[in-house]
Amino acid sequence: MPSYKAPVEDVLFLLDDVFAIQSYGHLPGFSDASPDVIGAVLTEGAKLCEEVLAPLNQTGDRQGCTRHPDGRVTTPEGFKAAYDAYADGGWMGLSMPAAYGGQDLPHVLNSVMQDFASSANLALSMYPGLTQGAMAALLVHGSEAQKRLYLPRMIEGRWTGTMNLTEPHCGTDLGLLRTRAVPKPDGSYAITGTKIFISAGEHDLSENIVHLVLARIEGAPAGTKGISLFVVPKFLVAEDGTPGARNGVACGSIEHKMGIHGNATCVMNYDGATGWLVGEANRGLAAMFVMMNEARLAVGIQGLGQSEVAYQNAVAYARDRLQGRSLTGAKAPEKPADPIIVHPDVRRMLLSIRAFNEAARALVLWTALQADISHRSQDPQERQAAEDHMGLLTPVVKALLTDLGFDNAVKAQQVLGGHGYIEEWGLSQFVRDARIAQIYEGANGIQAMDLVGRKLPRDGGRAMMRFLGEVEGFCKQNAGDEAMTPFVVPLGKALGDLQAGTMWLMQNAMAKPDNAGAGATDYLHLMGLVALGYMWGRIAKAAHAASASPRMEAKLVAGRFFMERMLPETATRLARLSAGADAVMAMPAEAF
Amino acid sequence: MPSYKAPVEDVLFLLDDVFAIQSYGHLPGFSDASPDVIGAVLTEGAKLCEEVLAPLNQTGDRQGCTRHPDGRVTTPEGFKAAYDAYADGGWMGLSMPAAYGGQDLPHVLNSVMQDFASSANLALSMYPGLTQGAMAALLVHGSEAQKRLYLPRMIEGRWTGTMNLTEPHCGTDLGLLRTRAVPKPDGSYAITGTKIFISAGEHDLSENIVHLVLARIEGAPAGTKGISLFVVPKFLVAEDGTPGARNGVACGSIEHKMGIHGNATCVMNYDGATGWLVGEANRGLAAMFVMMNEARLAVGIQGLGQSEVAYQNAVAYARDRLQGRSLTGAKAPEKPADPIIVHPDVRRMLLSIRAFNEAARALVLWTALQADISHRSQDPQERQAAEDHMGLLTPVVKALLTDLGFDNAVKAQQVLGGHGYIEEWGLSQFVRDARIAQIYEGANGIQAMDLVGRKLPRDGGRAMMRFLGEVEGFCKQNAGDEAMTPFVVPLGKALGDLQAGTMWLMQNAMAKPDNAGAGATDYLHLMGLVALGYMWGRIAKAAHAASASPRMEAKLVAGRFFMERMLPETATRLARLSAGADAVMAMPAEAF
Repeated sequence: MPSYKAPVEDVLFLLDDVFAIQSYGHLPGFSDASPDVIGAVLTEGAKLCEEVLAPLNQTGDRQGCTRHPDGRVTTPEGFKAAYDAYADGGWMGLSMPAAYGGQDLPHVLNSVMQDFASSANLALSMYPGLTQGAMAALLVHGSEAQKRLYLPRMIEGRWTGTMNLTEPHCGTDLGLLRTRAVPKPDGSYAITGTKIFISAGEHDLSENIVHLVLARIEGAPAGTKGISLFVVPKFLVAEDGTPGARNGVACGSIEHKMGIHGNATCVMNYDGATGWLVGEANRGLAAMFVMMNEARLAVGIQGLGQSEVAYQNAVAYARDRLQGRSLTGAKAPEKPADPIIVHPDVRRMLLSIRAFNEAARALVLWTALQADISHRSQDPQERQAAEDHMGLLTPVVKALLTDLGFDNAVKAQQVLGGHGYIEEWGLSQFVRDARIAQIYEGANGIQAMDLVGRKLPRDGGRAMMRFLGEVEGFCKQNAGDEAMTPFVVPLGKALGDLQAGTMWLMQNAMAKPDNAGAGATDYLHLMGLVALGYMWGRIAKAAHAASASPRMEAKLVAGRFFMERMLPETATRLARLSAGADAVMAMPAEAF
Repeated sequence: MPSYKAPVEDVLFLLDDVFAIQSYGHLPGFSDASPDVIGAVLTEGAKLCEEVLAPLNQTGDRQGCTRHPDGRVTTPEGFKAAYDAYADGGWMGLSMPAAYGGQDLPHVLNSVMQDFASSANLALSMYPGLTQGAMAALLVHGSEAQKRLYLPRMIEGRWTGTMNLTEPHCGTDLGLLRTRAVPKPDGSYAITGTKIFISAGEHDLSENIVHLVLARIEGAPAGTKGISLFVVPKFLVAEDGTPGARNGVACGSIEHKMGIHGNATCVMNYDGATGWLVGEANRGLAAMFVMMNEARLAVGIQGLGQSEVAYQNAVAYARDRLQGRSLTGAKAPEKPADPIIVHPDVRRMLLSIRAFNEAARALVLWTALQADISHRSQDPQERQAAEDHMGLLTPVVKALLTDLGFDNAVKAQQVLGGHGYIEEWGLSQFVRDARIAQIYEGANGIQAMDLVGRKLPRDGGRAMMRFLGEVEGFCKQNAGDEAMTPFVVPLGKALGDLQAGTMWLMQNAMAKPDNAGAGATDYLHLMGLVALGYMWGRIAKAAHAASASPRMEAKLVAGRFFMERMLPETATRLARLSAGADAVMAMPAEAF
């Protein structure tokens, strides 16, 4: 059976040594997050993930969810108890306001817990994950009465949440959506329509399910400007929160999927269900977008999570499996063969994953810290810079971490050879589960378009300028430090590719938007590689400053591997981008 | 339900226009392969794959194989009838000698049929595929009596074959194998041991199963030099072929795998089973290696097969699914949205697959033609050149086509968005099935070591020199042709990277073999990209020469896409290779 150990020490190093979290003490919530508190919180979270969530991952995959003829959905054995343990531990409201029962700790700690939980059991972690997403939307857009009604019970874990966007004929293009809302005399609405791909839409973990639903109010404009957001509880609730009659919403079927079998993906049928408007009428899409940054960051974390757990299990196999001899002579002459970790090609695979995991985790924490600043800082300039950063990096984190997270799960599976293909060993599940993260919460091609079409040009490119400037500044600051040369020289070269790619887009995409579309994915990966390279620069700097240890030594090796073998891909990405859209657009649709 | 249409026209273009198959008329077997015969054979094969094999692919995945308490294994519904149709059509012995009941047609046609069949139903196609592998070994190494006993019945499809190499503690490192063979007075051997991962080891498709088994004769040397090859039929057979008593071999269990569910992957227990030596004692590994080129070529074809069928289904979805509007204005203003094939990023994904498929198919046919020459030519020089080519390109075809074939199935799945993740749509199965081809028949890292450590330096690098010379010659010949400029200029650049990489290996890998190991995979992909680029050069040349048509126009666009967007990856591969082994080897095993 696969196993999982949460990388608590690595996280603490990143928070303390790389990002100096103690310097954020001026922000509300951070002052409570002393090193002791952070250490205790993460140790407790790690324990829950390792001991409660992870052991259920494989059985959850095997059993999957079951929809019964009466529309009930049951989750795999043990999920209910594990979910309760998660809720009882206070994890649901870790960074939610104390006013609603949350712990008001920094969001960055929540991101760490998402990392651990998605490694341990992605399917299970999605139930609280979606609840947190729904809470974020209610927190920003809900009325005070809605917040008081829903948030405390969701934080307690008694009620869970969902997001209902997709319909059979519309996913990315929400302007086409048909679910309609008819106003009722009491101010509520009757919601009717079919939603698909609703994760956690129905299950047996909580007393009630709070559906957030996009629908069109009768007579509203067509397209995206006529979409409103509604809250539709599975059980209607009294003002004091007592659940009452069943609402007119039911799970019509669940999907048979490639992975995340433990999470129910539901077709939800709304048949005159009673819902209440959240925020302003016809502004539903905007309401959704506000919470999308954090949801997308969370999905990026899922990519990292599968990469991490796949890596750990591949390393365990590579240390254990005896096969062949080292090219430079036997390393375990007393054994019939050497462990395969002696072979350079096995190490290449493992190091590719490792070199990603550490930098990706840094990128997640760095971005999550910006989310904290953007929510909590009193300084408008600091807040704006953080918002710029979040907006710019969110699509990169989402797409890059899920693309590479999936590739890494595949690489880890390859380390196990034939055993990697057998379900019993668990690597197949990591691959199958990781795959969804490239697709949902905006497929990765959509992330690339968001980056190139919206985030990059916004405010005259201010956010990108700042990012490029920060990386350039780091290279310059450390140019004289010999120990940093193996990091800043390749980083500077990759930054040059990114600058050239950005310039190319500025010159070629305005007049010909297909050039932006055809190059978007490559540009996103180009930028992502530079961001990971910058993270390695920061990690290396902190590792040099820390007292020497095998752990710090290993970081410097993994970082060098990244610089020598992974970062050079920027050249290919730039070449693809600069090729432009001609060959991409030349073929008539019928000739494909 | 996914569908499949065999690319017969593309194959005919490659055989006739690109590789001038009619010029091979001096080889035995080819004179019978007139254009009419080839056309009829491929049309018939396409029909069988499209109408009989493909419709069972999804049900085979869902039902899988079942092992019953008595050790019997049953295959999914319909597999037996489809297998019979395959055998009855004469496909099993398409390129086997007429003396044993085969049709003696060129091997290249067999490769085409493998391409079609693995697209249509990979799991099902493996039953005849393994039988062909076993036949190839018997044909080269079996005694005349063994050939007369086994081959005709295998060609008829009444008996199937398997290859038994792997044991629980040894896969790649066969020197460790423990299955033992004790001589019996009648000249046969008693075989005892456990073999794992035996595809098609037990099933209900044929009257008998002919196991080829690697085992160590009592008293034989340790390591790879003491391994012999045995033939062990499931039912003992009289000299006239009548099946008799059950032999001492049984299926102990079948594996629960990520994919190819319709093919039974068996643990085979040999308990004093009667077997007969095939070829010389202690030369079993050499006997296996002879047939490995064709088996590995066949697995490469499986990668292409999944890429092709995934592409076809992604294109169908992209033409049908309406979502969003083209960046340059509505293309289907009469509809609520444009089909997603208008979006550059969707086209990028589709064209990446298409640009691979066509060139990969060319590479397969080119290599299969060398197999034909090496088996059939009377001219020793021609034969040697063909053997050089086969030996050099086989690991490249196996690893490159399965790595990219898998990546392409993933890309095709991405085109379907959320639907790609739902089993009903079939893309998930293509991904899951494609994954095995990177692992079995020598994991791809082993292919890379075979290329760099054995094939490249063999005979003073003769085969590689010839390959580099051929590509260089092609570039020079076409340098003056303006229409060929978009092909030969990038190809020449990529060839330069390959020459530099080869030189780097010569200078750095002799003294430090870890440099070869750490760079092997990147070198293989570097060479594979150049090989695909060369194929595109050849295709473009033939397309220019053919009369203009939308089909030829589409080839030129796909080829240009390859040159502009895929071939530039050679630079990154070269950079990784040239980084050397230092960072790869620096980390102690315990620090991973």
